[in-house]
Amino acid sequence: MMDETMLSLSGVRFSVRYAIVGSECEAQAAARLVAIDQTVEAPDEIIPAAICEHMLGRIEEFEKQGARYQATISFPVELLGTDCVALLLSIFGISSLRAGIQVIEMTIPERVLAVWQGPRFGSPGLRERIGVFDRPLVCGVLKPVGLSATALANLAYQLAVGGVDLIKDDQALVDQAFCRFEERVTRCVEAIGRAARETGHRCLYAPHISAGWDTMRRRAVCAQSAGAGAVLVCPGLCSFEAVRSLAVDPDLRLPILGHPALLGTYSVTATAGIAPSVLFGQLPRLAGADVMIYPNYGVGFPIERDDCAGIRDACRRPWGDLKPMFPTAAGRMGMDRVEEMRSFYGQDVVFILGSSVQRHPQGIRAGCRAFMKAVGQKDR
Amino acid sequence: MMDETMLSLSGVRFSVRYAIVGSECEAQAAARLVAIDQTVEAPDEIIPAAICEHMLGRIEEFEKQGARYQATISFPVELLGTDCVALLLSIFGISSLRAGIQVIEMTIPERVLAVWQGPRFGSPGLRERIGVFDRPLVCGVLKPVGLSATALANLAYQLAVGGVDLIKDDQALVDQAFCRFEERVTRCVEAIGRAARETGHRCLYAPHISAGWDTMRRRAVCAQSAGAGAVLVCPGLCSFEAVRSLAVDPDLRLPILGHPALLGTYSVTATAGIAPSVLFGQLPRLAGADVMIYPNYGVGFPIERDDCAGIRDACRRPWGDLKPMFPTAAGRMGMDRVEEMRSFYGQDVVFILGSSVQRHPQGIRAGCRAFMKAVGQKDR
Repeated sequence: MMDETMLSLSGVRFSVRYAIVGSECEAQAAARLVAIDQTVEAPDEIIPAAICEHMLGRIEEFEKQGARYQATISFPVELLGTDCVALLLSIFGISSLRAGIQVIEMTIPERVLAVWQGPRFGSPGLRERIGVFDRPLVCGVLKPVGLSATALANLAYQLAVGGVDLIKDDQALVDQAFCRFEERVTRCVEAIGRAARETGHRCLYAPHISAGWDTMRRRAVCAQSAGAGAVLVCPGLCSFEAVRSLAVDPDLRLPILGHPALLGTYSVTATAGIAPSVLFGQLPRLAGADVMIYPNYGVGFPIERDDCAGIRDACRRPWGDLKPMFPTAAGRMGMDRVEEMRSFYGQDVVFILGSSVQRHPQGIRAGCRAFMKAVGQKDR
Repeated sequence: MMDETMLSLSGVRFSVRYAIVGSECEAQAAARLVAIDQTVEAPDEIIPAAICEHMLGRIEEFEKQGARYQATISFPVELLGTDCVALLLSIFGISSLRAGIQVIEMTIPERVLAVWQGPRFGSPGLRERIGVFDRPLVCGVLKPVGLSATALANLAYQLAVGGVDLIKDDQALVDQAFCRFEERVTRCVEAIGRAARETGHRCLYAPHISAGWDTMRRRAVCAQSAGAGAVLVCPGLCSFEAVRSLAVDPDLRLPILGHPALLGTYSVTATAGIAPSVLFGQLPRLAGADVMIYPNYGVGFPIERDDCAGIRDACRRPWGDLKPMFPTAAGRMGMDRVEEMRSFYGQDVVFILGSSVQRHPQGIRAGCRAFMKAVGQKDR
């Protein structure tokens, strides 16, 4: 029987740091529960000794940090797997159902990290595609939902002539009867291409492709064939594994912008869910996003300056061979905060241009130019 | 220009009820923000009048309910789309990023609901497959992770001989080197089939197929070919749309058990996320799960009796032509709570048998038989 039940494990372990609410005693009990819930999820008595010894989560560190306790728990890498489904399952599958437990960091050994491709382009590759190396990038947004493909293409043209580096669909644009995906992509690519020929400045278009996987992939292929240059996808709607599937797809070579729709629930409570540095930093970088969008601090969303610092660092920190990912400054971001954001993020950040640019007294084009100048675009 | 920007909408609207934290004034402001964030996500000045009038969310009701305010907000059905990606985007995409806002109900007009297939089998269809009509169903669990396929098959045999109706993989079983998916499915189906020939009682096996979609579907096909009889999938890991894709797949005819891994984050905070009745009731039923697993009240998870009543009702309430879905009594559920659960859920519930059955003094088989007797299985 022992031969049959014995598991063979490499002995290599990865670890997750959890912040836990409660007294020292409660937090210790919760940490022990995480070690069980995330692995065998059963009482000791039914678990063969070998499984207990090797499979169960191990509390490697436990200490008070601020108002909460932090427990670093290690697990066999065999549970981590090589895709985002197994990864999320192994770090937080069952423990997400408990109150007062938050994932705050993942530590993955280098040799295990090597099976993760991460961003195909990363920030250096995206810069090369656009041809801008010495300043933050700026991304315009096609909105509001309800405009026809023609009206959106007109807007895209103005944004591109205004000099932005990227243009993304608003996340509410999917494939509605009043604005079909294919027509929108075709018209917007044409309009942006026309603007590029006039200005000599490249601009990538990221249509929103979130859908069931077959449809999502079909839309990505359509975007690539049309010459869009990038795609926008929501891991909260399609799964992080959907992002990874796009990033490793041999037939696709498009930078991926991740959008935080529906992910907020993971981050709005500061004592549960997945900390912003993991949710908007480590996870999308591992999955292969080249740019991750999230609401910035100071624009009315429950995200703090420290959270954004954590995301920024998770995007850039040397991490195996994974390329760095762009953090973003998003969420109704106006001209008034450009300097602050540049000093906070440095050059390697993508500004998501708020719709305020559509209200500029001299028009959209002038609004874009003013913003581009503020981020350091040279006169052209 | 107006011709180009004018949207053509059916005029039909669906609505979402949100519970909002704060003073009346704050809650009203938050409701107005939901109406904007979930649609145009832009200030009034840039929105053409026609879009403002038809696309923007409309606050249909606003009232105080307990400690929070509730706002019912309607949206054009064109945003709802026909898949779970557009649906989740339109009910909570951006608003999930705000604090203190919780989705508590979706109301979808019947003619719109008609495009949703929902559960392929539902509770009546699942009962027919098993041949049990007059008592709750019982589902055994293959655990802990770390056991070999052979050891799990041995456990499956004992559970099946003990008379359970369904056997599911523990969610931690994926496709690890020490227990490969295909080998597990083959061996467990064989063991359960052998037990069925001995007892004359049918038992379905639900292997865990969560993975990237291509792999997930391949595993579902493998499970079907092997004769497993059902599948287990985690919408929190693979997306609700993944569940729908399985439920509508013309080549698959397998009942779907949904598992709550990673969904906890949506429900652990009672003032944010998605209320349990929607998350574990309306959403999986719409997506097409036949059984939805979630932690029961009173077993140490942050879920209340009222939450479970809400799920139970959402599973069964007449809802267009959608078949009813099975609620479950899960989470280390022992014999001691069978009577309470039967009176709470009635007959149409699936008991997820805790690992306590593995500790029965007379062995697993006897443990199962005692439990089956408690739920009303006739002597055989």
